[in-house]
Amino acid sequence: MAKLVAVEPGFYRIPLPEVLTDSMHGEMRAFELNTVRVRDAEGAEGVGYTFTVGRNGAAVDAVLRREIAELAEGEDADAIERLWHKIWWATHYGGRGGPTVLALSAFDIALWDLKAKRAGLPLWKLLGGFDPKVPVYAGGIDLDLPLDALLRQTDGNLAKGFRAIKMKVGRKHLHEDVERVAAMREHLGRGFPLMADANMKWSIDEAIRAARALQPYGLVWLEEPTIPDDPAGHARILREGGVPIAAGENLRTIWEFRLYIGADALSFPEPDVTNCGGVTPFMKVAHLAEAFNLPVTSHGAHDITVHLLAACPNRSYLEAHGFGLDRYIADPLAIRDGFALAPDRPGHGIQFDWDGLDRIRG
Amino acid sequence: MAKLVAVEPGFYRIPLPEVLTDSMHGEMRAFELNTVRVRDAEGAEGVGYTFTVGRNGAAVDAVLRREIAELAEGEDADAIERLWHKIWWATHYGGRGGPTVLALSAFDIALWDLKAKRAGLPLWKLLGGFDPKVPVYAGGIDLDLPLDALLRQTDGNLAKGFRAIKMKVGRKHLHEDVERVAAMREHLGRGFPLMADANMKWSIDEAIRAARALQPYGLVWLEEPTIPDDPAGHARILREGGVPIAAGENLRTIWEFRLYIGADALSFPEPDVTNCGGVTPFMKVAHLAEAFNLPVTSHGAHDITVHLLAACPNRSYLEAHGFGLDRYIADPLAIRDGFALAPDRPGHGIQFDWDGLDRIRG
Repeated sequence: MAKLVAVEPGFYRIPLPEVLTDSMHGEMRAFELNTVRVRDAEGAEGVGYTFTVGRNGAAVDAVLRREIAELAEGEDADAIERLWHKIWWATHYGGRGGPTVLALSAFDIALWDLKAKRAGLPLWKLLGGFDPKVPVYAGGIDLDLPLDALLRQTDGNLAKGFRAIKMKVGRKHLHEDVERVAAMREHLGRGFPLMADANMKWSIDEAIRAARALQPYGLVWLEEPTIPDDPAGHARILREGGVPIAAGENLRTIWEFRLYIGADALSFPEPDVTNCGGVTPFMKVAHLAEAFNLPVTSHGAHDITVHLLAACPNRSYLEAHGFGLDRYIADPLAIRDGFALAPDRPGHGIQFDWDGLDRIRG
Repeated sequence: MAKLVAVEPGFYRIPLPEVLTDSMHGEMRAFELNTVRVRDAEGAEGVGYTFTVGRNGAAVDAVLRREIAELAEGEDADAIERLWHKIWWATHYGGRGGPTVLALSAFDIALWDLKAKRAGLPLWKLLGGFDPKVPVYAGGIDLDLPLDALLRQTDGNLAKGFRAIKMKVGRKHLHEDVERVAAMREHLGRGFPLMADANMKWSIDEAIRAARALQPYGLVWLEEPTIPDDPAGHARILREGGVPIAAGENLRTIWEFRLYIGADALSFPEPDVTNCGGVTPFMKVAHLAEAFNLPVTSHGAHDITVHLLAACPNRSYLEAHGFGLDRYIADPLAIRDGFALAPDRPGHGIQFDWDGLDRIRG
């Protein structure tokens, strides 16, 4: 038994190198980072984290500090399913989503890190092991960038080793989106994997119209065309729009993913390990997708998620998008010729710069 | 314009007069209470609250203190829909459920209280006004009470003026539930409105079996037969079990209710004003139910909810269940001959004993 003797949350505010914008979140100037370190009786440590685009981090910290630490201490860190379910049900009333699930996600990641370290295995091998070389795309948050700046950013991403790129859509007029996607397609050439992300901006019929207008540009997928609360609406967009649909960063449970996947409403399920409940539910969503003959992609936290997709035969692209966190991590994930390589260090292999983080406490 | 100049959260821990138990939450020894007081530039005040069965309250407090207060100050308290949507989207990432929605619920209640007070109207009249006399039931949390104590508790509820009663089911063996429901039916007589609440305990097929076994006892409804994440499962239970189904205390958005109501999965939608997003979404759920030819019932916070059901032509029973909060409220809701009367005081009419609450800070 790996008896948990310490659960230590941390809460930080990461200033963004530049202001980011998308269609629904407005201007983002700082991301919040919540970390959790767990330690067992033998001194082994695991680390997990979650993040927000600027709000709810204090609530995540409160859940880690007040609820999860108390529920977890003394428990067997190796019995992750049992511990996950204990916390899920203890925090279910008033939880079952929101900051509570982000906190649980960070904690679950820490438990898997600990388990893999104790086993002396990189996380992707502990989880089954498929292929450490994972195709990756650059997720740009660039809705308000002028076109020339968007193309310059794209050249920068190509120079960094990316061979697939996602751009934002959802500008005021659809023709602007079409012109920008057309310019990107022209710039990148036929066959270059290009995705577009609307961040929930549209109604169902607006999304169908947009998808049809974007059909000529061969998008790999159109992401989050509408609010994450409408499986039937997504099914219509996919069926009538004629462009593959990705979504999932705002779904919080395996059951929400099942509603979408079971309704033929998604082409690319896109869980985020830092907000879907952690590694445990992420892998279940990936396997659910596999059973439905679907690929699985990802959102956020590429340094952890690279391990999860490296364990999935149905993995599609890994999303890489920096929010300044790389400055606080030793050996950030390297991208080479369109691929990221899951590290062979035990656990997920992320080493935070705790002294640096101390200076930006939330 | 009713300019908001103050948003003041409070966080308290209410010890329960006796330990409560149901099938999924285990033993409950204290409820958490989060309050929020809003004040406009002219000195008018509104009060809202939410509660939990013992966890997540610190996170609710963090959302009120760190996010909602900042987002709300200086805004027009009368433009509730605008303010609600501003907060919904500002906190959407990492929110969209859990403690964030409980916090928003409390805040929205305070805004409606303020608006009604400014208008000099009781809330039920401000919201449209149907009938202040609302049928009410006693919601017992009594799964582990021995049968004789359950019947004594029932006699106590009859003496208090209740003419409808809900009991817990979901004991280890179905035959125990059946025996207890049969004894309650025998005790109360034919036609007495009796409900049963399983608190999410069963699988779909277990729930169907239970519903069929309970059919002879004429339940008004069977509540939360399974987890709140499975609309299709609820539809099967309703269709194949042959007993009306109530659920909703664990649904957090109008969209979740739509998934259930649109799938013919619920007979009695049961929103909780303190966790569905507040008065604003509660009334939308009630109206959605009306459009689908369904009654609407309620969960928790009877002192506020009596106003909402008093404004709904399709209102069914109001749930009354004390968790010791009445000790901290002047003029708690009176029950007479099966009905509660929505007060005629302006607003919702709840006056907290702030000094008393100060002694039980969370």
